[in-house]
Amino acid sequence: MSGEHVEGLLKELRAIVGVEHVLEGEALQPLLEDWRKRYRGWARAGVRPDSTEAVAQVVSACARHGVPLVPQGGNTGLCGGATPADDRAVLLLTSRMNRVREIDTANDTITVEAGCLLQQVQQAAETAGRLFPLSLAAEGSCTIGGNLATNAGGTQVLRYGNTRDLTLGLEVVTPQGDIWHGLRGLRKDNTGYCLRDIYIGSEGTLGVITAATLKLYPQPRAQRTALLALPSLPAAVAVLERVRAGFGAGLTAFEVMAAMTLQAVVHYFPEQRLPFAAETAPWYALLEFSDSEDEVHAQSRLETVLGAALEAGEALDVAVAGSVAQSQAFWHLRESIPLAEFRMGKAIKHDIGVPVSRIAAFVEKTNAALQAAFPGVRHVIFGHLGDGNLHYNVAPAPGQSEAELLALQAQVYDIVHGSVMAHGGSIAAEHGVGQLKRDLLPRYKDPVEMALMRRIKAALDPDGLMNPGKVL
Amino acid sequence: MSGEHVEGLLKELRAIVGVEHVLEGEALQPLLEDWRKRYRGWARAGVRPDSTEAVAQVVSACARHGVPLVPQGGNTGLCGGATPADDRAVLLLTSRMNRVREIDTANDTITVEAGCLLQQVQQAAETAGRLFPLSLAAEGSCTIGGNLATNAGGTQVLRYGNTRDLTLGLEVVTPQGDIWHGLRGLRKDNTGYCLRDIYIGSEGTLGVITAATLKLYPQPRAQRTALLALPSLPAAVAVLERVRAGFGAGLTAFEVMAAMTLQAVVHYFPEQRLPFAAETAPWYALLEFSDSEDEVHAQSRLETVLGAALEAGEALDVAVAGSVAQSQAFWHLRESIPLAEFRMGKAIKHDIGVPVSRIAAFVEKTNAALQAAFPGVRHVIFGHLGDGNLHYNVAPAPGQSEAELLALQAQVYDIVHGSVMAHGGSIAAEHGVGQLKRDLLPRYKDPVEMALMRRIKAALDPDGLMNPGKVL
Repeated sequence: MSGEHVEGLLKELRAIVGVEHVLEGEALQPLLEDWRKRYRGWARAGVRPDSTEAVAQVVSACARHGVPLVPQGGNTGLCGGATPADDRAVLLLTSRMNRVREIDTANDTITVEAGCLLQQVQQAAETAGRLFPLSLAAEGSCTIGGNLATNAGGTQVLRYGNTRDLTLGLEVVTPQGDIWHGLRGLRKDNTGYCLRDIYIGSEGTLGVITAATLKLYPQPRAQRTALLALPSLPAAVAVLERVRAGFGAGLTAFEVMAAMTLQAVVHYFPEQRLPFAAETAPWYALLEFSDSEDEVHAQSRLETVLGAALEAGEALDVAVAGSVAQSQAFWHLRESIPLAEFRMGKAIKHDIGVPVSRIAAFVEKTNAALQAAFPGVRHVIFGHLGDGNLHYNVAPAPGQSEAELLALQAQVYDIVHGSVMAHGGSIAAEHGVGQLKRDLLPRYKDPVEMALMRRIKAALDPDGLMNPGKVL
Repeated sequence: MSGEHVEGLLKELRAIVGVEHVLEGEALQPLLEDWRKRYRGWARAGVRPDSTEAVAQVVSACARHGVPLVPQGGNTGLCGGATPADDRAVLLLTSRMNRVREIDTANDTITVEAGCLLQQVQQAAETAGRLFPLSLAAEGSCTIGGNLATNAGGTQVLRYGNTRDLTLGLEVVTPQGDIWHGLRGLRKDNTGYCLRDIYIGSEGTLGVITAATLKLYPQPRAQRTALLALPSLPAAVAVLERVRAGFGAGLTAFEVMAAMTLQAVVHYFPEQRLPFAAETAPWYALLEFSDSEDEVHAQSRLETVLGAALEAGEALDVAVAGSVAQSQAFWHLRESIPLAEFRMGKAIKHDIGVPVSRIAAFVEKTNAALQAAFPGVRHVIFGHLGDGNLHYNVAPAPGQSEAELLALQAQVYDIVHGSVMAHGGSIAAEHGVGQLKRDLLPRYKDPVEMALMRRIKAALDPDGLMNPGKVL
């Protein structure tokens, strides 16, 4: 496209959103790199529409000029999905689309625009006496649009599901610039194909999600957090089964952590403390129980169920948080793992899922295969055991430099992802595909499924202008 | 297609599945009509493959001959989705695909073939000490493949979701005869577009679902059923909000029934009894509470929460089932409503969903509009209040014949569906579209959504051979 044509498009975009909302030059720079600084792209401009109609006009204008669009929310993605991979692109920024449009407490729904921060949605629900349960580390800066685009997971999936499960309706601007008004707040609606779920998780490659109607839940009346010291990973799976039966849907989180992850946290952040002696156990679990009754019942129920786990030898020790502050301290240990990991030196990260029944075998076999190939590398393993989702990361061996480890990345990927597939798993559990795993997909996914995905992409975005270079 | 060509295809089909599994003539007759006897079609043959590979070969053979396929499971659908609408079609019968392939209790999943009866899946789960919660009136004769094709709902959706929410993975034969091996038992998997949810609810128009991996749950330790007499529909909504907060996810059913529906049940089936005087209230609710603790706790919790509803005046009277037999008797009242309705004379049925917050206004306004247009017609209203899903049926006025009422069907549809849309609802909540509502969709759905659906149909089934004349 010639310079003259570009200027024509920019002029149109300025007319749609206002001159001050078409970013170029310096203002654009921070938006061209992902926050992990793994990807850097280039874009002609960043455009900030403030309404669905304006988004539709922006999409139409770009389509007319044959210019690709890259939607971007909080730019907190872990796979480069919001960083341009095509130098001709325009960035579509959702930051001004940040209104809570409606809260319907009797229907337990909230309708929000894509640029709302996740925390803003949580708080709006709380103010209305409800719970919006999606919860993840980036919640203070990620947008709900990004959560929808990647079908984000987090710590409450065990009880409430992924972002997809929390969504009833969508408003979407198609690649042709049409608006699909699909903001239905219905628990049951079988009037044709479930377009909602095709758009959720499609990472902006099929259109732009501009708003969503999301499910709300009653707030729990009491919550208890416990940290468990466990003799083994199979024991963690046994405890999980026990607490699922004992707490029912009251089990709202079950996070597992290898001992070395917590040891690293208290090493690098000495103001944090484990409630046990440092060498108590090889594995730990952080468990949250949410009760719809009251504090007294929550405490007694917790003691009964976890007491039985201790008695059965599935847990070596249990520490129950005695206060909200202590509960936050337990969660803080868990949430500090990525920061401690960063201090240990850059790791090779994997966001993998396997069936819960195979997770212990997966870890044992994959650890052994890695040690055989690269003796001494450290296994930084933690994640959402209740969902079969582990962050299975590989850190440098003692004395090994970051560069030495990163040079092995392709071989480490091969071993880990090969093992994931051998255990019936997924190489992208909750962070999505983006640029990071795009080229891996054809290798690990069923070819028929890949072909179906390509058919859908070609049908909905025949000119390939929506977030090119991502997913497919 | 000439007779010679047809014979060529039948010969191929016999070679694939065996002569005795290609049905023609008399054997085919009962399969050409839906069980409500609203639709009757014609087909060249009915084919009963017993493996996914055989299904793929059947689909390929039909595709090569340009012959449409109509998948059929238990033939219990309510919208004519499994009855051929195209006289050139072959019926694909899933009855021999009825194996439970795997139960993984540690992963809480079950993998079943499409032809398994829903009850068979429930029982396999129960035998393994787990719960498969999908539950609906036809469970003894409908297949899980049909449930998947229509995204079936039922009485436990409030807690466990629709069939789509209960499904993790699928195996599908595409219209080209390829097999997509997507039987993943993963709670988190974000490796591209969610094809699973496009196939679920697509009523066989995009391919044939041959197997699924479904979620299991812990069995509750105790259950309580209560029948509530309510002063009004808004009071029912208030009670729903109260019990959702008080029971949390322990609230596993909340069915609402207009007084006349229960009066009809005890009138036509005098062996059944209401636990109240017949004229206690204008509305009733049937509520189920499932507890992960024990019988004593379940009882005390029920008394606390429902006692508060009585005290607040939201409920006029509460009857708690004192035994399993009495609980079954309460459910039997609810389940007998369609049979009582049948005795009252054929009704004009609507399977509608609206937001829970608008359901009382919807019923009030729609009742008034119908009375204004057709004085004396009776409102047979019951359904799943917790999901905003009502079976809003219209029975003949006293003295009015069935034929007189049915002559008004188009006008009654217009009033009810128009009111549904004015209240932000869906004209097909849990029974699907099939032939019954196909021509209504373009009138009531967003045109952009219709266009997206057509693009997906054209992309996945370009020759239009999968279940033609349904949905689109």
